Amino acid sequence: MPKYRKVAIVGVGLIGGSLGLALRKRGLATEVVGIGRRLESLDKAVDREAVDRATVDFAEGLAEAEVVVIATPVESTAEFVCRSVELATDAAFITDVGSTKAVICQEVATRLPAALQKFVGSHPLAGDHRTGPEHARSDLFEGKTVVTTPTESTPPALVAQVESFWESLGAQVVRMPPSEHDEALATTSHLPHLLASALAATTPEEWLPLAATGWADTTRVAAGDPELWTQIFSQNRAAVLNALDQLSDALSKVHTALTDENWTDLQKTLQQAKRIRDALGN
Amino acid sequence: MPKYRKVAIVGVGLIGGSLGLALRKRGLATEVVGIGRRLESLDKAVDREAVDRATVDFAEGLAEAEVVVIATPVESTAEFVCRSVELATDAAFITDVGSTKAVICQEVATRLPAALQKFVGSHPLAGDHRTGPEHARSDLFEGKTVVTTPTESTPPALVAQVESFWESLGAQVVRMPPSEHDEALATTSHLPHLLASALAATTPEEWLPLAATGWADTTRVAAGDPELWTQIFSQNRAAVLNALDQLSDALSKVHTALTDENWTDLQKTLQQAKRIRDALGN
Repeated sequence: MPKYRKVAIVGVGLIGGSLGLALRKRGLATEVVGIGRRLESLDKAVDREAVDRATVDFAEGLAEAEVVVIATPVESTAEFVCRSVELATDAAFITDVGSTKAVICQEVATRLPAALQKFVGSHPLAGDHRTGPEHARSDLFEGKTVVTTPTESTPPALVAQVESFWESLGAQVVRMPPSEHDEALATTSHLPHLLASALAATTPEEWLPLAATGWADTTRVAAGDPELWTQIFSQNRAAVLNALDQLSDALSKVHTALTDENWTDLQKTLQQAKRIRDALGN
Repeated sequence: MPKYRKVAIVGVGLIGGSLGLALRKRGLATEVVGIGRRLESLDKAVDREAVDRATVDFAEGLAEAEVVVIATPVESTAEFVCRSVELATDAAFITDVGSTKAVICQEVATRLPAALQKFVGSHPLAGDHRTGPEHARSDLFEGKTVVTTPTESTPPALVAQVESFWESLGAQVVRMPPSEHDEALATTSHLPHLLASALAATTPEEWLPLAATGWADTTRVAAGDPELWTQIFSQNRAAVLNALDQLSDALSKVHTALTDENWTDLQKTLQQAKRIRDALGN
């Protein structure tokens, strides 16, 4: 018997679509409903069989759902969380997939304090620089980390429900406060995106034939959606600025080492970098 | 009948080993000899069948070779080029695989002006952050770009010989002056390495579990050999400093956009970056 009767996914892009595919492949839900505003995306999601059915009717799509996942761009996440809390049944729990957490959780708490009894923020560390349900993959969450960000007032039983949901998709859960998540992700995700973009943007196009795997790897994320990423930078502005300042300090030191031909210092930085990069693997 | 009777590869690491594997797989040489200083690397190259035989005797290894490829770290490339010119037969041509070209070509010209009648610099835009013959691959050069850097005094017939050598390994050749190569590669290869290293070096290790594919891609090259890369930065110091200055300017603009909450400007940078990154593909 499926774990959930009905799961509603609000926003069926890459993440929402992958979520639907994963739920259906694993037989976790009797019904997966995709909710969205754009018929084109909903049609694509249905074509890919990422959802059992799709609707633009928010209230109808949500009716009787046990699980609601908001998978929209982060700018509209808090609004959809609050609307879901108002429309969903008492038994439902709500989570999201946003790359930022502090602003979303704060906005939800401000708009509708009661929502914190039904909503826990989540961020699956999985994705792709390509967007849209056409790139969705049923294994997107397998073996990946999902950060959950309960607040002090979140009921423990609700946290357990949300974490069990992600674990049933093959993910490992890491729990931390929203602001701590945002601070870490500023360095591990948002800053890399900013660097990759600055590097790609300043590379003269006529030199692209001279770009090998190093440039390709280092700039890969710069192919991500500019609008989605602008929203992420906007929501995590302070932490990203802080991470950027630290990186600029490191680049200044590298600049000094190059200027002074201090190869010992430069090599020390490269060694430290290699040690940390090797610790990640692959 | 093989294209070459004897090919000598000086330095049998990742690139030298891959060269041997490719020559042998394609049946391009009657004999591939690996020359090196460290018996351990030579043994590994023989074990991998990257070379037919290996020797630490430079003169013996070079004797009667038609093609000599210097695949050592860039710091010793010019020295080995000059020694090869003195020892090789009149019919032999000599090239290298170094990631920098201006210093090598200049040093060769200064030490032994006659060498420019037998040596043309090359840089295959192929590699891996892993080193050593154990990671060598016979297809490393297939479909890749190799930059050749003849000088004004290089005989056209010699350039043709060297370019034909790389083409027979499945590579496409792009020809440019040494200094132009170094200027372009400062942006397309050396700067990405510097950024990746600065990012990895400033990421707190306890946050690595929160690093997803974005961080992994953006920092991948930072796993490269610190000593080899210090040599590259040393040889291409001025161009790398210039590329770093341009990148710093771009990061300053991004910083200002974030500080001023000028999301239009930030999104424009992200769009420009996406356009250039998409132009590369994959």
